[in-house]
This record gives sequence, C-alpha cells and structure tokens, in this order.
Amino acid sequence: MERCDELATHSRSAEHLERVHLSPEHAAANALVAGWMSEAGLTTWQDAAGNQCGRLEGQTPGLPALMLGSHIDTVPDAGRYDGMLGVLLAIAVAARIAGSGRRLPFALEVVAFSDEEGTRFGAALLGSRALAGTWDEAWWNLADSDGITLYEAFQDFGLDPARLPGAVRRPEQLVGYLEAHIEQGPALDDADRALAVVTSIAGARRFSLEMAGMAGHAGGTPFARRRDALVGASELVIAVEALSLELGTIGTVGVMRAYPGGVNVIPGRAEFSLDLRAETDECRDECWRRIRETAEEICARRGLSFEATEIYRADAVRCDPRLREAVGLGIRATGDADPIALYSRAGHDGVAVSRVTGFAMLFVRCAGGVSHHPDESVREGDVAVALDAFEAAVLALAD
Amino acid sequence: MERCDELATHSRSAEHLERVHLSPEHAAANALVAGWMSEAGLTTWQDAAGNQCGRLEGQTPGLPALMLGSHIDTVPDAGRYDGMLGVLLAIAVAARIAGSGRRLPFALEVVAFSDEEGTRFGAALLGSRALAGTWDEAWWNLADSDGITLYEAFQDFGLDPARLPGAVRRPEQLVGYLEAHIEQGPALDDADRALAVVTSIAGARRFSLEMAGMAGHAGGTPFARRRDALVGASELVIAVEALSLELGTIGTVGVMRAYPGGVNVIPGRAEFSLDLRAETDECRDECWRRIRETAEEICARRGLSFEATEIYRADAVRCDPRLREAVGLGIRATGDADPIALYSRAGHDGVAVSRVTGFAMLFVRCAGGVSHHPDESVREGDVAVALDAFEAAVLALAD
Repeated sequence: MERCDELATHSRSAEHLERVHLSPEHAAANALVAGWMSEAGLTTWQDAAGNQCGRLEGQTPGLPALMLGSHIDTVPDAGRYDGMLGVLLAIAVAARIAGSGRRLPFALEVVAFSDEEGTRFGAALLGSRALAGTWDEAWWNLADSDGITLYEAFQDFGLDPARLPGAVRRPEQLVGYLEAHIEQGPALDDADRALAVVTSIAGARRFSLEMAGMAGHAGGTPFARRRDALVGASELVIAVEALSLELGTIGTVGVMRAYPGGVNVIPGRAEFSLDLRAETDECRDECWRRIRETAEEICARRGLSFEATEIYRADAVRCDPRLREAVGLGIRATGDADPIALYSRAGHDGVAVSRVTGFAMLFVRCAGGVSHHPDESVREGDVAVALDAFEAAVLALAD
Repeated sequence: MERCDELATHSRSAEHLERVHLSPEHAAANALVAGWMSEAGLTTWQDAAGNQCGRLEGQTPGLPALMLGSHIDTVPDAGRYDGMLGVLLAIAVAARIAGSGRRLPFALEVVAFSDEEGTRFGAALLGSRALAGTWDEAWWNLADSDGITLYEAFQDFGLDPARLPGAVRRPEQLVGYLEAHIEQGPALDDADRALAVVTSIAGARRFSLEMAGMAGHAGGTPFARRRDALVGASELVIAVEALSLELGTIGTVGVMRAYPGGVNVIPGRAEFSLDLRAETDECRDECWRRIRETAEEICARRGLSFEATEIYRADAVRCDPRLREAVGLGIRATGDADPIALYSRAGHDGVAVSRVTGFAMLFVRCAGGVSHHPDESVREGDVAVALDAFEAAVLALAD
C-alpha cells in the first residue's frame, strides 16, 4: 500500500495522478520499480518497448518463464491501484518465493507494462503488444496532443525504435501470464468478497447507427403521416436495454442526436451509437443480431431507413483453463472455498499477451467499483489476501 | 415564386436553407425585402426588433393601418415558402393596390417578422411579440448554441436593446392583421383545394426538458446500478407519442442530446425538447400534466432527476370574425363558393399580434402537407389564386 502511494508521487502534476507512456514520470516509475525488483532478488532490465522487467531463475538457469505483472501507466486524473497494484503484488510474490529459497520448475518474470491505457497515443496495450510481437508499424506515426510521434517519444525516452523486436517473447520462452488487477466494477463489493477468478475478457463491438425518416412541421404533420426518426431511435434505445438484460450482455447507447434539431420540427434523422460487450463473441453477436432485427422491425413499421456502421471490434479472450484453475486454487488456499468467477468487462494486457501465451487473472475488490478516478480505493486486508492467493496460485502451478 | 427562390439564397449554408434571427443572412434578407417594398411604392424601415416594415398611406396620411405579413426566419434545413410566401404575397397585394391608384380608408403596412420559429434562441415569435408590446425582459438572457445572448445578438445586428419599445404598436394605430401562409398540413392537398380560411390557432406550449442520472463506464457499470438518463428520456419520447394519440393532442420531441456523449460512456444527462399543441388549452394542459406525471414515474424508477422549463406558451387564439369574413369573401371572389375552414395546428405571428389587434389568415395548399423540410412546395397556380384572394380580402375590408 505504501509503494502504491510512493508510485503515485511520480505524476505529471502534483494535484492529480497522470503518468503516461514514455514520459519523465514513466522513467522515474520504472527506476523505482526496478529498485524494488532488485530488492526482491530479481535481475532487472528495461526492455526495448520501455517495459520494466525482472527475472528470478528457476531450478536451472534459462527455463521458460511464468510472467506476472500489470501496467504502470495511468489515465488522466487516475486512481493509484489500476495497474500498479498488480505490478507491486507480482514483485511481492517474487520476493516471497526468492526469500523462501525454493526453486520452481520455471523461471519467474515480473513485467511492469509501459502502456495499457493508451492515454498518450490513443492506441492501447502498446507495451504488451510489443512483447507479444503484434506491433503495427503504423503506430510509429501516432502523435500525442503536443504533436510528438511515438517514434520521437521512443527516442526521447532513450529507446531505439529499430531495436523494438528485441522486446518480443516467443511462445517457447513462456509458461504463461498471471495478472492481479482491481475489479473496476462493483460485483465483489456487492457480494462482500475480496477476490475473484477471471474467466475471460469481454468481446466488444461498437457501431454508429442512423435512422432516417422525414423531417416535418411539428404542428402540421398528423401522426399517421409522420416518419419520426427520433421516436424510432428511442424505441431501439429501450430495446438495447431490454435485450441486454434478456441475453446477459451489456449494450449502451452513449451518443444520441436528433436532426435537424428544431424544437418544432419532427426529427428526420437520428444519429446514435451502440457499445456492445459480452462474455463470449457468440453472445455478443447474437445480441447484435437481435438488436438489428428489432431496428429493422421498428423502421419497417415507422417508414424509416436504418444504417449501421461497425467502428470497433475486439473478440473475447478466454483465460487459459490450467492457469485459471491455479488462480482458483490460490484463492481457495486463502480460505474462500467457492471463489466467485467473473468475466472482465474492461480490456487488460492479457488480451495482447494471449497472442503469445496463455493468461489468467485475479480480481481484487475496489470500493464501489469506482476506477479511473482519484477515489479508486482498495482495502489493506484485501491486498494481503490477494498476495497470499497470488503466491499460492504460482506454487500450485509449480506443483 | 422567383422571389421565394431568391430569398432562399440568403442562408447560413449553400447546401441547405437556414436563416435565423439576427444573423447576417437575416440582415441580407431584410435588405432584399426592403427593396421589393420600395419597388411596390411603400416607405420602408427596419423597426427596433429587426422586423422589416413598409407602409402605403391611405386616403389621408397617418390613418390606422391594416397590417399584412408573415415571417422571414426559418427552421434549420427549411423549405422556402413557410413565412416567406406570406411576406411576398403581402408585398404583391400592396404593389397591386399602390399601382391601381386607389386610396383605401386605412393605411396598408407590410411586416416581415424577424423571428417566428424560435430556431436560434428557443423562444418563438420574438418579432411579433416586440411589435405587440408583450416582450419579456427575461428573454435578453436567452443564449444561442454558441452562448451568444439575445441582448448581444441585438447589438451585433446593430440594434439597441434599450430602444425596443420603439417597435411597439398601439391598438389605435391598427385596423387588423392579415396573413397568408402555407397550410403545413395535408388537408387542402387531400381535399384537392387551393385555399382555406383559418378559424383559430391551436394552443401550444414548449418545454426544455432534462433528465439527469450518473455517467459511468459502459463496461464496468452493471444495469442494476445504472442511472442512464438517455434510456429514461427515450421512454418519455415514446410516451409523448402514445399520450398524444390517446388525448388527440400533438406532442413532438425535436431536440435530443445525450451527455457526455462518449461511445463507451453511460449518458449522465439528456437534454431534449417538447412541443405540445391542441385545439383547446384545456386539452393541451391535460396532456402536459400526463406527460409530466409519466416523466416523474420514469425518473423515480430509474433514479433520475427531471427538470422542465417552459420556454413558450401560447393559448389558443380565435380569428377575428370580421377579418375572417373578409378572407372568406376574398376566397369566394376567386370562384370557390364554399371555402374550407381549418384551424391551424401550427403557431403563427397572429398569436402575438392578436394581443394588440384582431387577425385572420388565409391558408395556401402545400404538396403533401410537407413543411419544415427542403421538399416544401407550392403550385404556381395556387399562389396566383392566393394573391387574388388576398387582394380581394383587403378590398372587401376597404368596402
């Protein structure tokens, strides 16, 4: 908990926490983390993508590694646990194992990923994607709000973009990836439980939607002749909620605008958005099929047209069964006989890492589910239990 | 018809017609109309409210005036006849009478009202209310979407807010007010008739509505904890339609925006509008009572707050029997032995003007009843008949 506080002092501003990819604060945080890794008995290095790494050899030098970690960057005006808590728990687990003198049948590595949030350059998961070998050369030209490109930011940070492939890990070098992270949702708080085992990271799709009818004078156009796009869109907003509840998915309409937008003009067009998440891609896609079907029924009945443009798509990523089982055993070892299983509605580094090795996650309760906000908080008792569970999960894999 | 086309070129955008109160386009349209008034033999001035006026003296100078007119402002993406056709018909009638050399027992005045639609500042009939002396000082603080207040807009237009009382007409200065306007409904088109005499203007109320809940991350906030303002507002949009059909009123939501407006953020606030019309004030007010009741039920159920601000209210207004008789005589003079009588579901400047003098209206068929839309259209033959009927109505009053 003290280390979380200390890490939070490395911020762009004294008033709030903001530490973005390749910033001076990032360099300071990496140095601080490297010191704690050394104290824990790890050999340390900063990789070619700015990820801070540490390694504890296993029974023989050079064994494939079980990676533990999370990210060290933040959103603007962040809390101090999203990402950081997972890095510090990983270091603490490695310290306990190194201190015990026990040699595992795999190496342990700890990674503090350089960029998960995507705050500075828009694209997220830059640290873990570099590590997984799924880097897109087009990203070098992404610019931050000051016009500094990712390429330039690498150089300013003392990194050589040409050496980026040096950060890539190959499947045969890895046993898997385990991450502890605050839940960023209220399920654990509501259930009065400290920990959960994560089943998967949700699949998501986002759409721009448009319904079009015909604008007309609010006074002069009888209802039988109206083709009111906003009434149609409103029916769909209600249907998105109802279908989400029916199918166990998460549908949100965050953008809504009626055009032409006159107080006394029947809307001829409505532009709105849809954000859809679900535990599995099948569930997400079935929900979208039902939403589209409903939209078409509404539009046929109301004389409207309907258009949908997909603007984002990420398939769900399932946690590795063996690693997930180990996390469950870890939680059980702390006295919780029947761990809660949750799927993550937010994205995590595991999405990227899964391209090179299996992953699993441990969720830690955060108060009220609040995250991406300075009020983000965790209980000291929960962190203690999480450390025990995380260590027990690693030992379960070793056994 | 050509003048309607020419007026339509004075628009905020080359792609569509939008000419709002006190805009540069408004100034250009006033100048164009003033030129046509001068050509017609009228003396012209822009009054202290931005209304463009012209006057033709009667048998002796300084007689009370019969006012003819309509408005020159538009909704966004408007047609070219709503308002403008009535201004141009009024000028054409004055031109015919001036050209005939006949001196009437009253002066003729033509007014192109500066604001009827209320597009820019939400409050409507600003031009005719200034003329009728029913100005509300609170309106000076109304702001447009750029945050410019009505007070500032007056100054930007070259008008002195302190001089507004100069626009006020007294009852003894006026004989009455006649207005020609497109029907903005399909009754004439359905009956295959060119003209109708108006009996009354429906009662109307307009509100700015706001529902507020709490913004949150679309991924992390379960439905049970959501306080989604847009879903609540969407329920009310549907209810406005259902209650209108049940009660025989006309309710329209023309403005709808969700805030903060992120694709992956649950809307914490929805701002929308309500336009309510009915043949009687009792019916209109009962509908509003039911809508408000429904909004409060939705908000209680969804943990939202609800605020309604009335931004416009006009009680139903009956046309003056003598002036209405003259309009009927005018239509009969064109060969229609039994003119159709309609009540206007749309508000018109006559609502405001009725506070200072009697008024009556002539409706002209528009294709399919389409209005507040670029497809708004009138037949040249109907306009010719309307001009004859309008002139004959004025002469009937003179006799």
